Amino acid sequence: MIVAKIVGNVVSTNKADRLTGKKLLVVQPVDMVSLEPDGKPLVSIDTVGSGVGEIVMVVGGSSARQTELTKDTPIDSAIVGVIDSIEIDGKETFHKR
Amino acid sequence: MIVAKIVGNVVSTNKADRLTGKKLLVVQPVDMVSLEPDGKPLVSIDTVGSGVGEIVMVVGGSSARQTELTKDTPIDSAIVGVIDSIEIDGKETFHKR
Amino acid sequence: MIVAKIVGNVVSTNKADRLTGKKLLVVQPVDMVSLEPDGKPLVSIDTVGSGVGEIVMVVGGSSARQTELTKDTPIDSAIVGVIDSIEIDGKETFHKR
Amino acid sequence: MIVAKIVGNVVSTNKADRLTGKKLLVVQPVDMVSLEPDGKPLVSIDTVGSGVGEIVMVVGGSSARQTELTKDTPIDSAIVGVIDSIEIDGKETFHKR
Amino acid sequence: MIVAKIVGNVVSTNKADRLTGKKLLVVQPVDMVSLEPDGKPLVSIDTVGSGVGEIVMVVGGSSARQTELTKDTPIDSAIVGVIDSIEIDGKETFHKR
Repeated sequence: MIVAKIVGNVVSTNKADRLTGKKLLVVQPVDMVSLEPDGKPLVSIDTVGSGVGEIVMVVGGSSARQTELTKDTPIDSAIVGVIDSIEIDGKETFHKR
Repeated sequence: MIVAKIVGNVVSTNKADRLTGKKLLVVQPVDMVSLEPDGKPLVSIDTVGSGVGEIVMVVGGSSARQTELTKDTPIDSAIVGVIDSIEIDGKETFHKR
Repeated sequence: MIVAKIVGNVVSTNKADRLTGKKLLVVQPVDMVSLEPDGKPLVSIDTVGSGVGEIVMVVGGSSARQTELTKDTPIDSAIVGVIDSIEIDGKETFHKR
Repeated sequence: MIVAKIVGNVVSTNKADRLTGKKLLVVQPVDMVSLEPDGKPLVSIDTVGSGVGEIVMVVGGSSARQTELTKDTPIDSAIVGVIDSIEIDGKETFHKR
Repeated sequence: MIVAKIVGNVVSTNKADRLTGKKLLVVQPVDMVSLEPDGKPLVSIDTVGSGVGEIVMVVGGSSARQTELTKDTPIDSAIVGVIDSIEIDGKETFHKR
């Protein structure tokens, strides 16, 4: 999984039936030490009630469909956790306020 | 999912049986802020009645097969939504005209 | 899917049982406008009777197994269409001779 | 699979139900000869009782779900082995102490 | 599939149950014309009795599980063929000795 920050959202009316009611968020992958943007943003489906500004864990590929909410849906990215803290090399690089 | 612009199409007569009747579009991934091209174009299957010039949401991998139209087909990219608007960092970066 | 040119083939006698009788072609991804090489070549399984020199559509990942010929086989790339023509931004960038 | 070093961990309280009780480790991919960092770190699920500082084998994609612990879970990366030694070109590049 | 040279192996005692008895080889992807290293090495499971020094065909992702030996195992890379010869643009770039 990757670590990303939720930075926005996408609105789509004309979409695949199975996407109805899903929250389409824009996630910006971040470096796990500096928390700075690192890589291209993605559209990801929220499965945990997360929102803009939060640091989250994002799963990709077929595994994005392994939640009750996303089963059998045409999505390849899902937010599966809000991150409380990250520790790298014995130092806390992130702690949710 | 990624955000892309539909820029063209591909014609193929001699193709896998299960691709018969599918609309083969060329999608150019775009930056979600500038909407400028960003990355290599792909051939993607339309599942929502989209057309050239539209900004769409594209799903990749096995999840591209998770729609009625694309089930069990040999495709790894599908257009699953026409985007109405994108908001990043509190600003609307795209709004469909 | 990506667009590629068939540039060669691979011979393998000692291979997985399920690959017996499969045609192992080398495909070179190409730019959809210039048709020039763009990216690394792959070994791909022909499913449509294609041959060296043709411009084809190549599918990757688990979807490469979604044809009669490739079902349950250990392959991650398959040629699923011979391309007749490509149109980008209203111009025909390729037309099969 | 890739070779990586476990460098930290992530804490997430609000996460997908099926992730409950899973150990979320941060793995840094390393070069197999120099053992120096090579590539971006990932959040990966431990399935073998591994810990910080160990050199491990990491599997990605749907295959990360092919263990008793990770079956049907929304994860795309799992630690599936602690590495004892690596031999490249006839030389041992790593030996666990 | 990609073409790679087997350059070494990995030893892991503490690993996922389903990996017991599997041969963990290190494969170095190579350019199909020059046969020079091109890309990062991977740990791959041998399914055809291959060994160090051989040029092989490597499959990735879920398809790596589509052999008798690798079914339901947590692996994302498998060696599925020993290559006898490669022909690109009408020239033989590799022939097994």
